[in-house]
Amino acid sequence: MTGRSQPIEITKIRADLRESVRDRVAIEEPLEIRLGFETEGERQTKSVSITMRTPGNDEELALGFLFSEGILRACGDVALVKPCQGDNTLRVELESGVTIDLDRLQRHFYTTSSCGVCGKASLDALSVQGRKPLPMQPGQFARTMIVDIPDRLRAAQQTFEETGGLHAAAAFDTQGELVVVREDVGRHNAVDKVVGALLSGGDLPATGLGLMVSGRASFELMQKALAAGFPLLAAVSAPSSLAVELAREFNVALIGFLRGDSFNIYAGEERIAR
Amino acid sequence: MTGRSQPIEITKIRADLRESVRDRVAIEEPLEIRLGFETEGERQTKSVSITMRTPGNDEELALGFLFSEGILRACGDVALVKPCQGDNTLRVELESGVTIDLDRLQRHFYTTSSCGVCGKASLDALSVQGRKPLPMQPGQFARTMIVDIPDRLRAAQQTFEETGGLHAAAAFDTQGELVVVREDVGRHNAVDKVVGALLSGGDLPATGLGLMVSGRASFELMQKALAAGFPLLAAVSAPSSLAVELAREFNVALIGFLRGDSFNIYAGEERIAR
Repeated sequence: MTGRSQPIEITKIRADLRESVRDRVAIEEPLEIRLGFETEGERQTKSVSITMRTPGNDEELALGFLFSEGILRACGDVALVKPCQGDNTLRVELESGVTIDLDRLQRHFYTTSSCGVCGKASLDALSVQGRKPLPMQPGQFARTMIVDIPDRLRAAQQTFEETGGLHAAAAFDTQGELVVVREDVGRHNAVDKVVGALLSGGDLPATGLGLMVSGRASFELMQKALAAGFPLLAAVSAPSSLAVELAREFNVALIGFLRGDSFNIYAGEERIAR
Repeated sequence: MTGRSQPIEITKIRADLRESVRDRVAIEEPLEIRLGFETEGERQTKSVSITMRTPGNDEELALGFLFSEGILRACGDVALVKPCQGDNTLRVELESGVTIDLDRLQRHFYTTSSCGVCGKASLDALSVQGRKPLPMQPGQFARTMIVDIPDRLRAAQQTFEETGGLHAAAAFDTQGELVVVREDVGRHNAVDKVVGALLSGGDLPATGLGLMVSGRASFELMQKALAAGFPLLAAVSAPSSLAVELAREFNVALIGFLRGDSFNIYAGEERIAR
């Protein structure tokens, strides 16, 4: 877990006491993802994203990001992933036979990593791309298993304990076992890392897994969950309107305010066993 | 406050009770910001940002974003702001004499709104642009005033109460009065709205104000605070390493974990009165 947090001298104020202490903060640094691909027989490289992330699992982050955005379709599309020009740039080279949609790539220059895809227009785009609602599996996840996930996730979050400053994302199976846990200053990066890890392991689509995130469930996170095929997204806090809309349209179970023995179901209620 | 949240039917689970209830979720929709400007005598329009935001105060959001990014230098640079093609696109037309740096604009196509500017490189860029550390004012803010801000902010947050799903940002004066409060699903948007409101009111640079944000303090938020001239940024949760670095370099007081009667000072301690 080296490299995710760093020591720092701070001043702690409590009532009228003031003391200097040594603390730790979560590391945040930019990562540029460059994509190498062939078009009309010529090799090109384009910068497709710069995101502020916590170093660690950068390859997974890059692969998960490219997969969520629909640029990668399978792990076999990738010839190599390597750092270039220092630790904060990664180059992802696609196999020579792999075609990419240049318009789609271009679009990234206009979108933001908070957004991932562009809202309403992208809701349409997702449908147009032929993405279909996930098949409904009634009773796929048990309530008693779901309420245990936050404690398990907290136990697995090492850097959060140190810094209080990292988001976490985890893929879990129907028994409640955490399959992959990743942390990052950005929630979307933590999810990209989970998706990248599953992609590398040949475990996508994640049709038998749930995805748990700390914090809120935004449209972007729901879009990433859907792209990876997760039938369930659970968040500690509130979902947004667009996350609910997307979940309902594509049959994904969306759970919010998962705390103690309670949670709210915003979409896909049939997936939760009675 | 209409348009920030919407009613929704959900299922509440508590232990083994399951009931259908009517709840509210925060609205999240994309906003595209287009910039109209003149270059070599010709009028152009470029899309500079698409962000997922909660509708409301969109003009402030656009102005604050453009100001934080260094594209706008003063409110007088703007000829008009108007919606185009529906509610989710805003066009900001610059006065004809106002020049902009096209390279700088181009850069936005590569950056993300989570990042704002691009980390280390941008730390350099900020210095290179001739931005100077803020003059240090010892004892500018009182501890007892600071610990009251979270309660005041919570009291002012209307949609959060309804949905639990919105971030808030507020500018406050040295007496602890909240000058501007804005809410959004995105923390960076809430800050852009505050900055846009101050810009519109002729209240920038914000040299006599502090900025409070819900959640964490990332590099991006510190960059926005600095661009607007706030000498203090306070957050409910943890700051990131790069936020601390930037704050220390530019003499901004950075406060984290502001809860109850306690907080941590990560930078600019002299600004907090003993």
